[in-house]
Amino acid sequence: MTSSLYLSNVRLADGQQVCVSVVDGRIEALGAQVAAPPGVHVEDGGGALLLPGFVEGHTHIDKSNWGRPWYRNEVGPLLTDRISNEREWRSTSGHDAAAQSLALSRAFVQAGTTRLRTHVDIDTHARLRHLEGVLATRETLRGVLDMQIVAFPQSGMLIRPGTVELLGDALEAGADVLGALDPALIDGDPVASLNATFALAQRYRKPIDIHLHEPGEVGAFTLKLLLDRVEATGMQGQVVVSHGFCLGALPERERDVLLDRIARLRVALLTSAPPSRTVPPLKLCREKGITMFGGNDGIRDTWSPYGVPDMLERAMLIGMRYDLRRDDDLAMAFDCVSEAAARGCGFADYGLRAGARADLVLVDAECVAHAVVARPRRKLVVSNGRIVARDGALTS
Amino acid sequence: MTSSLYLSNVRLADGQQVCVSVVDGRIEALGAQVAAPPGVHVEDGGGALLLPGFVEGHTHIDKSNWGRPWYRNEVGPLLTDRISNEREWRSTSGHDAAAQSLALSRAFVQAGTTRLRTHVDIDTHARLRHLEGVLATRETLRGVLDMQIVAFPQSGMLIRPGTVELLGDALEAGADVLGALDPALIDGDPVASLNATFALAQRYRKPIDIHLHEPGEVGAFTLKLLLDRVEATGMQGQVVVSHGFCLGALPERERDVLLDRIARLRVALLTSAPPSRTVPPLKLCREKGITMFGGNDGIRDTWSPYGVPDMLERAMLIGMRYDLRRDDDLAMAFDCVSEAAARGCGFADYGLRAGARADLVLVDAECVAHAVVARPRRKLVVSNGRIVARDGALTS
Repeated sequence: MTSSLYLSNVRLADGQQVCVSVVDGRIEALGAQVAAPPGVHVEDGGGALLLPGFVEGHTHIDKSNWGRPWYRNEVGPLLTDRISNEREWRSTSGHDAAAQSLALSRAFVQAGTTRLRTHVDIDTHARLRHLEGVLATRETLRGVLDMQIVAFPQSGMLIRPGTVELLGDALEAGADVLGALDPALIDGDPVASLNATFALAQRYRKPIDIHLHEPGEVGAFTLKLLLDRVEATGMQGQVVVSHGFCLGALPERERDVLLDRIARLRVALLTSAPPSRTVPPLKLCREKGITMFGGNDGIRDTWSPYGVPDMLERAMLIGMRYDLRRDDDLAMAFDCVSEAAARGCGFADYGLRAGARADLVLVDAECVAHAVVARPRRKLVVSNGRIVARDGALTS
Repeated sequence: MTSSLYLSNVRLADGQQVCVSVVDGRIEALGAQVAAPPGVHVEDGGGALLLPGFVEGHTHIDKSNWGRPWYRNEVGPLLTDRISNEREWRSTSGHDAAAQSLALSRAFVQAGTTRLRTHVDIDTHARLRHLEGVLATRETLRGVLDMQIVAFPQSGMLIRPGTVELLGDALEAGADVLGALDPALIDGDPVASLNATFALAQRYRKPIDIHLHEPGEVGAFTLKLLLDRVEATGMQGQVVVSHGFCLGALPERERDVLLDRIARLRVALLTSAPPSRTVPPLKLCREKGITMFGGNDGIRDTWSPYGVPDMLERAMLIGMRYDLRRDDDLAMAFDCVSEAAARGCGFADYGLRAGARADLVLVDAECVAHAVVARPRRKLVVSNGRIVARDGALTS
């Protein structure tokens, strides 16, 4: 199969009927008058809606039970219950990070995701085992699914001596981004924890993506310390704050001071839009110029039974969480799992435009809002100019 | 097709392998040792999970655009914007309450719902037109979908003179339940509005199901007035409060006083578990003995683009809203769209037990929690002992 293709008879979000010419994995031209290059494979889009390949901004493919026997969840309610339960489960369940991440990644591709950022557990029990599994999956899916790997200290960093070194090893072994987790409430020392994170990031010249579950005022305190360090180290535009529940629970004035600073430092925000937690204000963040994007978080793992590898469903859940009902508002929810997510993660050459990588999804839907709420089967998924899925099934 | 049937090789929620004998539309026997009566149609369940037919506790089938061209939502943000936009849309869109309610009802059946409570707009514009359409749908689906109709003053009652009389006419014409809407914030006079509602209910000897969107303290005020009238009129066990957002936003002590009274008066609570609103506390309500159940609310209408006629998906959304992650907690979410909903609406002869109506659903899932999060295609839907859908499609 070549990576050149001519897609006829598809519709853009604005209703315009277009054809797309793909050469060497890139969109060469897109428009109403684009002709098919001689000899190229022609695919009739049947009038379907054309969307850019979806972007998963935050998940944990190394530990999903997708496609495996049901995991019976009897875990306690605390974050620390879930962390220790998971470590226990991994060591007794025959957990295989390569096989499990591959199964979930393939399901993502089937549903139209062509770029993905995944946080991979690094700790003193599993050491680099999860990373090795996910690196194998990345290699298997090279050219099909563009994957960023975050080295993530799920069990804490300073509280488990040896973890800082393992994170460094992970960044040397192929992780693209340095992860971090609740510097106050998990690591117990926000200043020391953030200092260690920024020192590591600078040493290995990697961006940062930090899980910040810390609520309300303690989250705001940690966030301020984090922003100080973004500024001091010159890491503007290189830091993502995932979750940021505190930003949904502060008095307006305090929140706005933080958001203005987040915008100035070009820190991006990631949300899975959990319905049971406070969340950063989506419209306000966008008005302030903050890149705010979406992700599933874990999918069917020991943490949570929920989630499917379908970014249209995540866009729907984002829309519901923020009570987005108008068509233009639902387009914003879709932006969170496409353009904004590509920008937030730094995936290059993204979008439905000449010169971009040819990552394309076709669905039978009347418009973007319809696609988000109906989540129809993917008629066609093109990654890097190659057809990788058709009628909801992988082509190989 | 007869309404007798023998279903072999199915699994209960507890894992037990059983067979089900159905005679004259009822479960005659259910167990491991149940034999097939001679000459009856035998259906091999293929080891699938057996669930009771689902119950939709609160929807609006009269005004859904399900299966119709996409409705482009450009509506303003207020409740009153949505109400007036909808009246306008109805009069210009060729709205057909019979056709539209039938399309959605059939989709409900296809996905395993066999009992449903729907609120039908009664107002001085549409008069009884919506009711007539929904009554036609109820007649068409008699024996397939058991339907309760609530006469619902969507545009307000006291603020639109003539509505009280129309509600009376609706109850005479076949509506089963008297609806009501925000006595303070829409009707503007909570005492007079509630007095009129209870007087109507008593005159026509009908139960009440009131939409109470009123938030926080004003909702609590209205709710107290409502409970006073439940007590004064002796309507214990005959009133449902839908939404009850205020119960998720009160100080604990004030909330608990209300909940204890709700329990004592056997008032049931309905939630669609909206992720952007405060919601009554599910576990606490259950602990206090309150029947709390679930529903979709409107599905793909001018109010909201969201919703699908699949009660497993609604159970999933309830689970997510209340952060239910354990298997036993997800069984509670499923209870909201099955047993508790039947109890809350007063649907008789419900459940997986001998003597109950044979409303059965088969899905390929390992357990109830798995069914809720995966929402698999329905292998078989039996209503009143008859097979009405197979492999996700209606049989007629």
